[in-house]
Amino acid sequence: MERIRLDFTHVIGDSENGKFLSMEEIGQLGDTICSAHEELKKERLKKDELSFLSLPIAYNKKYGNTIFGDTLWNTKTVIDQKAEQIKSRFSDYVQIAIGGSALGATALVNALGEPQRKIRIHTPDNVDPEWIGEILDTIQTEKTFFNIISKSGGTVETLSNFFVFYDELRKKIPAEQLKDHFTIMTNPEKGPLAELCREEGFTLIPIPNSVHGRFSVLSPGGLLTAAVSGIDIDELLDGARVMDEFTEESEFWKNPMLLYAAFHYIANTRKDIDTLILLPYSQKLRTIADWYSQLVAESLGKDGKGITPVKALGATDQHSQLQLYNEGPMNKFVTFFSVEKYRRRIEIPNAFPSRKDYQYLWGNSLNNLLGSEQRATAISLYNHGVPNCTLRMPEITPFYMGQLFMLLEKVIPILGKLYNVNAFDQPGVEESKEYARAMLGKEGKVYEEKRKEMEFYSKPANCKVV
Amino acid sequence: MERIRLDFTHVIGDSENGKFLSMEEIGQLGDTICSAHEELKKERLKKDELSFLSLPIAYNKKYGNTIFGDTLWNTKTVIDQKAEQIKSRFSDYVQIAIGGSALGATALVNALGEPQRKIRIHTPDNVDPEWIGEILDTIQTEKTFFNIISKSGGTVETLSNFFVFYDELRKKIPAEQLKDHFTIMTNPEKGPLAELCREEGFTLIPIPNSVHGRFSVLSPGGLLTAAVSGIDIDELLDGARVMDEFTEESEFWKNPMLLYAAFHYIANTRKDIDTLILLPYSQKLRTIADWYSQLVAESLGKDGKGITPVKALGATDQHSQLQLYNEGPMNKFVTFFSVEKYRRRIEIPNAFPSRKDYQYLWGNSLNNLLGSEQRATAISLYNHGVPNCTLRMPEITPFYMGQLFMLLEKVIPILGKLYNVNAFDQPGVEESKEYARAMLGKEGKVYEEKRKEMEFYSKPANCKVV
Repeated sequence: MERIRLDFTHVIGDSENGKFLSMEEIGQLGDTICSAHEELKKERLKKDELSFLSLPIAYNKKYGNTIFGDTLWNTKTVIDQKAEQIKSRFSDYVQIAIGGSALGATALVNALGEPQRKIRIHTPDNVDPEWIGEILDTIQTEKTFFNIISKSGGTVETLSNFFVFYDELRKKIPAEQLKDHFTIMTNPEKGPLAELCREEGFTLIPIPNSVHGRFSVLSPGGLLTAAVSGIDIDELLDGARVMDEFTEESEFWKNPMLLYAAFHYIANTRKDIDTLILLPYSQKLRTIADWYSQLVAESLGKDGKGITPVKALGATDQHSQLQLYNEGPMNKFVTFFSVEKYRRRIEIPNAFPSRKDYQYLWGNSLNNLLGSEQRATAISLYNHGVPNCTLRMPEITPFYMGQLFMLLEKVIPILGKLYNVNAFDQPGVEESKEYARAMLGKEGKVYEEKRKEMEFYSKPANCKVV
Repeated sequence: MERIRLDFTHVIGDSENGKFLSMEEIGQLGDTICSAHEELKKERLKKDELSFLSLPIAYNKKYGNTIFGDTLWNTKTVIDQKAEQIKSRFSDYVQIAIGGSALGATALVNALGEPQRKIRIHTPDNVDPEWIGEILDTIQTEKTFFNIISKSGGTVETLSNFFVFYDELRKKIPAEQLKDHFTIMTNPEKGPLAELCREEGFTLIPIPNSVHGRFSVLSPGGLLTAAVSGIDIDELLDGARVMDEFTEESEFWKNPMLLYAAFHYIANTRKDIDTLILLPYSQKLRTIADWYSQLVAESLGKDGKGITPVKALGATDQHSQLQLYNEGPMNKFVTFFSVEKYRRRIEIPNAFPSRKDYQYLWGNSLNNLLGSEQRATAISLYNHGVPNCTLRMPEITPFYMGQLFMLLEKVIPILGKLYNVNAFDQPGVEESKEYARAMLGKEGKVYEEKRKEMEFYSKPANCKVV
């Protein structure tokens, strides 16, 4: 089987010297990591928060029961049918979501969406009135389908955008047709959006309560948008399933998932490295960096622990960030995402034969230029003392994207155990939501207290502005 | 005069306690910073690398002579005319550049480009064959104008893309018309692109040799793309001129540029803060974070010094990165970019009167939702011990964008003096270019040596892959 490979040539060095890892110290962590892995194997069908591991097999009865029971097994058929219907009837498709619920689908559309497709895809994951206004100007709402994703049914940004688009559409078409323009993806068991679906007749597509937003790319939340943009979601799920099986491998040195977790953990906790550079050498994979950044930051950034992910892009950022990586503070570990075979080949033509200074370029292609730059940068970082590894993707296809998502998702619970943090909560984001709700006038004691607190900063005397 | 303001309420705290800065320690740096500022005032008309400060007045004779002499004063007329011609004759405009030469224009088009304009703007700043292929599929080359930007004339990515597009166009139109589809922006005095212009008859628009790519947004390199996308570049230059004058203010506590430099430097060098989060609360300002990241990373990341810039986006990244900022390692300083007045107003309608749980949203707008989230996040970060300041932009207009560019550009030479580094070179990026050229087959001793060095890693026995 062809699969994603982990090249860690430039991770390894003398451990006494600088930031590189020695084979010995990696090996010493092997037992601990393997124990964590074995624990997770036992927990995967019991613990709700690990249910995302079962998503690749949850839509197909042939794989037998999963942690979801029957919740999802016919959902894929619903998604396939909905996607066909949407593609044939609508000119635009708007995914309304934010955070983890949005990033997986956005990464998929960016990597694999058919450029020549007829239906335009919009993924507003912000409440910027200028952006939402532009989308409203671009689409004809009466020819647009909207997919609303909020597992809790309480995500304020998603709800606000939903209401705005719904209200615009309501002005254009008869009330009884409104529901044909929406699917709502939410926890089917409880929550205000599930109730709304019952009241208004919107199609509810279930997001199981146990699947957290940041692990939801292979849930219906990621799949519908992918299918509408022309991506083969069966292949995607296949890739994820294959990588899941492969990374169940118990032998430490044969399992890229365990090794990558080891590099991350050793670099961060023993080498004074606090920054993880995610550096795809592919325009199409740049949103994978956004997706994995979210996974790393929100899952592991707690109790004063964690590493700061930084999204970059090659070759572009060689002209922007590389100076800092090579000669700035030695606090970085770099993960390249490389592509072995691009789906296009573009030769660099001999456009101006008289210019001998450009001769070395002719006969090359953009393909080997970009590939050469990636390898050159990996070596140059190494020479400057910056440890780096490369996730080598054979080609950008649904199958390998499925592999990539699963490989990286599985790293997180391992790291959660190593860091001894709960990788599935995000207590640190609640407070700002409460302040915001308070400013918006929400009733209740907690909000009234927040409003009082904030009055302090509404007085110019307490502000410093120049 | 309305202008960008710096709100530093949440920077200030007890210096003995955590990461906040005390007024005393800020004040103590005042003299050093003001001396650096006074030096720069004396140097600005003498030193080549500070010539970018004169760009806002370089196109208009009424401001008198500048460091550029007569090089640029009629260039703005050329740009205005070219832009009109391009808009009237072409369906697509492709800016071919990379790094600093590309990021300023991209930030401008993203912030201010007329969404309803007829001409499509493409800014390929990478050599990804999949992306370049998509642009080739999208445009009709015979209806497309290309602007090539490379001051040195030797930027391999820019040249390669140039040759690809040129070759495609050559297949479609008569040879004598080719030159009407191109402008080339380069050092007019020397270099292979200047020679090529003379040989082939391309219009050369000068980028003065003294203006470095990362400080070139107000040079012709930024202006033509801006003008073609419908931006009032006179207003832009006016804003920059006004901010330049304002930030010549000598009194430390009255000058946001000096204060912002002080925060950056104290946080980085005295508070163990190594990460600078750039957090615009505006979809339209997100590429300002890319632009300033490049300025900070490449100018100051050297000699083991510097801070790592991280590009983020509000409110979106509240659902992605905020957990880490609030509860992860305390190594971050946050700079918000807020907008006081968005150009659109979108109310949140009462779409479902029966749902009382959503009632607190109705009567609000996306505008005050996004504004509330920004202020809420600033307070929440402060409560968690994370110092943060806000650059408050009255509105996203060419005038204020000009102010923003100038304010942030002027911070850099001040910091260069404080860090005692050369803010205008980038020695750390050369090596990877040499390795890449070697892989592409360039002749010469240095490349042959590199090729030999790299043969080591071409042997599987020397690679670690799993």
